[in-house]
Amino acid sequence: MQFMSPTFEKPILTVDIVPLTLNEGRLCVLRARRGADPYAERQALIGGYVHVGEDSHLGDTARRVLSAKAGLTDLYVEQLSTFSGADRDPRGWSASVAYFSLSPRERLEPALKIEGLELKPVGEAEGMPFDHDRILAAAVARLRGKGAYSDLPARFLGPAFTLAELHGVYENVLGEKLNIDAFRRKVIERGFLEETGEKRREPGANRPSLLYTLRKGHSVFDRRV
Amino acid sequence: MQFMSPTFEKPILTVDIVPLTLNEGRLCVLRARRGADPYAERQALIGGYVHVGEDSHLGDTARRVLSAKAGLTDLYVEQLSTFSGADRDPRGWSASVAYFSLSPRERLEPALKIEGLELKPVGEAEGMPFDHDRILAAAVARLRGKGAYSDLPARFLGPAFTLAELHGVYENVLGEKLNIDAFRRKVIERGFLEETGEKRREPGANRPSLLYTLRKGHSVFDRRV
Repeated sequence: MQFMSPTFEKPILTVDIVPLTLNEGRLCVLRARRGADPYAERQALIGGYVHVGEDSHLGDTARRVLSAKAGLTDLYVEQLSTFSGADRDPRGWSASVAYFSLSPRERLEPALKIEGLELKPVGEAEGMPFDHDRILAAAVARLRGKGAYSDLPARFLGPAFTLAELHGVYENVLGEKLNIDAFRRKVIERGFLEETGEKRREPGANRPSLLYTLRKGHSVFDRRV
Repeated sequence: MQFMSPTFEKPILTVDIVPLTLNEGRLCVLRARRGADPYAERQALIGGYVHVGEDSHLGDTARRVLSAKAGLTDLYVEQLSTFSGADRDPRGWSASVAYFSLSPRERLEPALKIEGLELKPVGEAEGMPFDHDRILAAAVARLRGKGAYSDLPARFLGPAFTLAELHGVYENVLGEKLNIDAFRRKVIERGFLEETGEKRREPGANRPSLLYTLRKGHSVFDRRV
């Protein structure tokens, strides 16, 4: 049996992506200068329309858009939430499925070579068109909420890291000082870390520090969507 | 300036809703028998198209559909996730924004008076059309994941409840026995309960029990979406 797609007016469906990283100890978002109206020349989240002939699902759309507009081909993205309404886009009733990614700064290097793309501290990013301020705020809230000793902030580090490095990342993400002993205890309790078996001597340290990595399969973030 | 809506083929945009409740100690989902093809006569999640002329955003769509198809006008719904793809609906490339609600069984009574609507234990609901099995599984996972001493299971109770009642609900939701003393300690620590100042004597109890309620503004569930 063949079913017809409904003939009434359909909303616009887009994705918007919030690539987050730490740059010089500050939580930053990757943004792009818009090439076309509406809001040409304004800095905004990277986004695009669903292409029904190309994308097998919305996760594909997010990856295609990141590749085409930011030269990024291997970021893990997680779906954040869907933002919608009659008034959020001057082109008509629209829904945007927002994705976010958390990665070390060097993973975003290819994007920073493209004219118009920039890393902006999240605290200075206000004033974006559409509801992009709200989408960014939701991504930061998700990171910081789960960041209560979740594995998410660890995504800003490379594959192996010391607990001292992880402690610094949490402090940067949460924007507050964290007692190192309580931090170590809680983060170990959470069970998402495993020792690599290797050690690294930090500059100025007397003894080498244990290196940790994220336990495979622990997080939904390990699944591509 | 007037912007044209894009002229290329747009995906279908729908909402699907997962109303969960406890019925005789079992976690159940409210489903409806489909009236029209595709999948006419099959039991499925309650869903519908976005109506761009009527709905100010997707939360509105969810409430309109719940009212029209299930006679439910005051459920709090929370957005779960968006499911999408070229193949999930025979009518074409579609995205469905899934919402879920958690409520005492009596809040669903109006729906159960409608022909074709039913409460189905989630463990016996498999075999729904589209990707509705997957959407239901995601809602249950959200409930049980956050259910690690979150406030979500408390939504199955009325406005005031004893810790013993809450303990029973958690056991039903998680499908396992929970040590009552550890449960009390953890759930109090979490800070989402407050004492109402009232007590209730349970049948067979020697002393009346303190009544609790959910602290206002604690949960995202307090916001209508």
